[in-house]
Amino acid sequence: MGSAPAAPTLGELAARFGLELRGDAQLAIVGVCALAPGKPQHLSYCADPRLRQELARTRAAAVVVDAADAQRYGGNALIAPNPALAFARIAALFDRARTLTPGVHETALIAADATIGADCHIGPYAVIESGVRLGARCYIGPHCLLRAGASVGEDSRLEARVHLERGCRLGARAQVEPGAVIGSRGFGNVRTREGWFAAPQLGAVTVGDDVEIGANTTIDRGALEDTVIEDGVKLDNQIQIAHNCRIGAHTAIAACVGIAGSTVIGRRCLIGGAAGIGGHLTIADDVVILGRAMVTKSIPKAGVYGSGLPAQPAREWRRLVARVRRLQDFERRLEEIEKHLKLESPATGAHGEQDDL
Amino acid sequence: MGSAPAAPTLGELAARFGLELRGDAQLAIVGVCALAPGKPQHLSYCADPRLRQELARTRAAAVVVDAADAQRYGGNALIAPNPALAFARIAALFDRARTLTPGVHETALIAADATIGADCHIGPYAVIESGVRLGARCYIGPHCLLRAGASVGEDSRLEARVHLERGCRLGARAQVEPGAVIGSRGFGNVRTREGWFAAPQLGAVTVGDDVEIGANTTIDRGALEDTVIEDGVKLDNQIQIAHNCRIGAHTAIAACVGIAGSTVIGRRCLIGGAAGIGGHLTIADDVVILGRAMVTKSIPKAGVYGSGLPAQPAREWRRLVARVRRLQDFERRLEEIEKHLKLESPATGAHGEQDDL
Amino acid sequence: MGSAPAAPTLGELAARFGLELRGDAQLAIVGVCALAPGKPQHLSYCADPRLRQELARTRAAAVVVDAADAQRYGGNALIAPNPALAFARIAALFDRARTLTPGVHETALIAADATIGADCHIGPYAVIESGVRLGARCYIGPHCLLRAGASVGEDSRLEARVHLERGCRLGARAQVEPGAVIGSRGFGNVRTREGWFAAPQLGAVTVGDDVEIGANTTIDRGALEDTVIEDGVKLDNQIQIAHNCRIGAHTAIAACVGIAGSTVIGRRCLIGGAAGIGGHLTIADDVVILGRAMVTKSIPKAGVYGSGLPAQPAREWRRLVARVRRLQDFERRLEEIEKHLKLESPATGAHGEQDDL
Repeated sequence: MGSAPAAPTLGELAARFGLELRGDAQLAIVGVCALAPGKPQHLSYCADPRLRQELARTRAAAVVVDAADAQRYGGNALIAPNPALAFARIAALFDRARTLTPGVHETALIAADATIGADCHIGPYAVIESGVRLGARCYIGPHCLLRAGASVGEDSRLEARVHLERGCRLGARAQVEPGAVIGSRGFGNVRTREGWFAAPQLGAVTVGDDVEIGANTTIDRGALEDTVIEDGVKLDNQIQIAHNCRIGAHTAIAACVGIAGSTVIGRRCLIGGAAGIGGHLTIADDVVILGRAMVTKSIPKAGVYGSGLPAQPAREWRRLVARVRRLQDFERRLEEIEKHLKLESPATGAHGEQDDL
Repeated sequence: MGSAPAAPTLGELAARFGLELRGDAQLAIVGVCALAPGKPQHLSYCADPRLRQELARTRAAAVVVDAADAQRYGGNALIAPNPALAFARIAALFDRARTLTPGVHETALIAADATIGADCHIGPYAVIESGVRLGARCYIGPHCLLRAGASVGEDSRLEARVHLERGCRLGARAQVEPGAVIGSRGFGNVRTREGWFAAPQLGAVTVGDDVEIGANTTIDRGALEDTVIEDGVKLDNQIQIAHNCRIGAHTAIAACVGIAGSTVIGRRCLIGGAAGIGGHLTIADDVVILGRAMVTKSIPKAGVYGSGLPAQPAREWRRLVARVRRLQDFERRLEEIEKHLKLESPATGAHGEQDDL
Repeated sequence: MGSAPAAPTLGELAARFGLELRGDAQLAIVGVCALAPGKPQHLSYCADPRLRQELARTRAAAVVVDAADAQRYGGNALIAPNPALAFARIAALFDRARTLTPGVHETALIAADATIGADCHIGPYAVIESGVRLGARCYIGPHCLLRAGASVGEDSRLEARVHLERGCRLGARAQVEPGAVIGSRGFGNVRTREGWFAAPQLGAVTVGDDVEIGANTTIDRGALEDTVIEDGVKLDNQIQIAHNCRIGAHTAIAACVGIAGSTVIGRRCLIGGAAGIGGHLTIADDVVILGRAMVTKSIPKAGVYGSGLPAQPAREWRRLVARVRRLQDFERRLEEIEKHLKLESPATGAHGEQDDL
């Protein structure tokens, strides 16, 4: 799959990516590597002050560093204001995962009225139903299913076994990992005397440009309107987004996050792994939610939010739980003492029960 | 896929669903819509008092409302005691997702001794192994796998890429979303000096009638007996149900819930998103478990249960964690003060360590 | 699929597995069963003291027990130091799930330069790309995808619809359940002024021998080096392992656990369901992490760790949350009282904010 990458010289890389070169411009780079231990003929990078000690020891032939680290480092270097970004751009030259060989596999099933853009790759056992539209240069891997009326923008990659439900739209340059389901039935059920009645889910999912959707992530279609994922959103693996949600542009969500129905998340948010966000909430732009946080109310203001009690030895944890449950008793005892000492206790109203969870 | 739905009149809908009509019986309804902003020629509904202000503004041609809202609303209306239910029933008329075109795709592989009911649809690249039994009018979507001896009741829909393991049984009118796995190996391993020995998982999964199973949900088969999902259970996406569990009839479980092995959940329970339920527990009928709750003990009584500390600004959260961890110190100081004041402290026994987590 | 198992006698089982026999050596055993209620002609076991009362009542024809229980039980018995293990070994004789019928289905697509070991089974619609190497006696189920250069050791089972990404390696005797994704893109993105830039993920996943990977579990490939799962690791369903992690040999991880990037887990650890482990952490050998624990720091010492507040009636839970949030007030009041009584308060430094979460 794909030819071996060429071996550009350090000088060519500097010119191509607009970086300052220090050292041997003729050095051929055959690949990229981690800083520790590093590999001869490979390029690495240092973007983390904690790794500076590795910089001195690396066996990499050259490194991408910022100006400050360049002064510390005596070897071949490419100097960039953002070494992680410059390195990522160079590393993309060596990324065989993005190979695209145009062509349709003979076992792919494509409806007669589907529109397939130029130079698409459609893999074995993919199924593309009636009315689907694919932009140019799409990669549709094995076992993908694009249901009737779905559309995918140009230069998108559906790696394998991706499900795109009827009428759902993916923008340009999408990156979708195996097992992702876009447009599953929203979980809308109405209680009746005889059990649950399934409320039809008649909306779809609209996904903007430059969106990444991780492996086994699920995005439900809307009940009446569409669930919306705006441009530039990055979704890791095993995320669940319920019906009618809207995820703002350039928001990144780590793995295992669950977002309940009709919640609106702002732009440029960062949501840590396994956080859970309740339904019908609004999260402002630029909010950072730390891993495993439990969000039960709207967050109207940018900032960093978290919750949860971190792990500790189980014996201590059990005592802590018991103590937390004795807090009512603590409070009573405090009041007793205050009464005894004729100190003022806060008015009961001042710490009334918080019933708005 | 499927012909466009006809456009029934408001009068026809009232008659068909037994609803009181107010306004123009001849009004043709071409589809359903959300209340805000609403669409001309479409039907909407109002079942939430918070949306009453939208009712006055909606552009929908007609709405389903209850008697009280009907008095407030001047436009065309269908009046129902449960507007959400009546609307859902009407909306189903416009739901193309449930189209069934009988026929077997030429690439579907069906074992010679499988029994396929009348008017089933079997999609491309589906695999149906030996001895499988399908009831009438089943929809088996692309890439589904029904292993040997599995069975599916009539009018069921396995949308796509559903895995039904050997000998597992789905009842009638099942709705199964893409990526669901029914009958994966229970996680039973016995520790030995050399490592883990995989205990055979010889049971299956038995699923009752009218069950919904969400996208990428997994249900393990039992070790010796079956894992059981009773009639009318509704499971959202990415739920994990371990081996030997039993989920009681009409219980609804939101996304990302995990239920450990051998736990028995009662009937008509509601379990919120991302809740976690330990193994070998018994949960009574009619229990409501709030989202993200951590259930470590059986719940013998109906009621509403929850746990967890909701998110707050990270700075405050860190202080809160530190304070909770200082509770032991608080307690000591309280006792010191009580001793000093010769007040009675609770006997140590009264607040002994809670070791039964 | 597979012939019905023979019916060994109790005497044959005792001889084959090196167990002490008590009772009727000629008794034919046609299968295995649970202790309660038990089935005639079947073998059961008792390894849990809580089930001893069932032992007296079981209808099973024979049981596997330890020496102590054998004294209590009057019926036919096989006596083993570890009854659960002995029973699991015997039960494997009756496990049809592990049937292997060599052969390649005519719809399986196998690249001309792939190397397929002796006596492999390759199911319908499986896709095996260029350069893949399969050891002898592998079972590759329907709809599996083995991308270019991947390899699988002998006697492995990829049950169905398993994704093995380019260059990823599975060892011998792997057991992989449906929907598992091995080698999805690591979630590495670099922030730029225009949005996120996807950092190429150039590593793979290396999996040792005797590893189990559950249904819909996802393991990301490394950014520059491989993500590593060592020998004997057991992973349940819906686990997420991020890029660059290393999971130590014989560690067992229950369902729904998420492990963030670059974390190293020791050997023989036990990680409970839905636990979450942060990135760039190191967990020592022999650590036990209880279900739903939130691990935010490295754990350098073996032991049992947990966290979280267990569920309680919602009314009490809401009060508990309010009380925990009033802890700052409690602390202030304690200090006030101590000041009033001229008792010593702990130095502020002693309980300074814990900012190292």
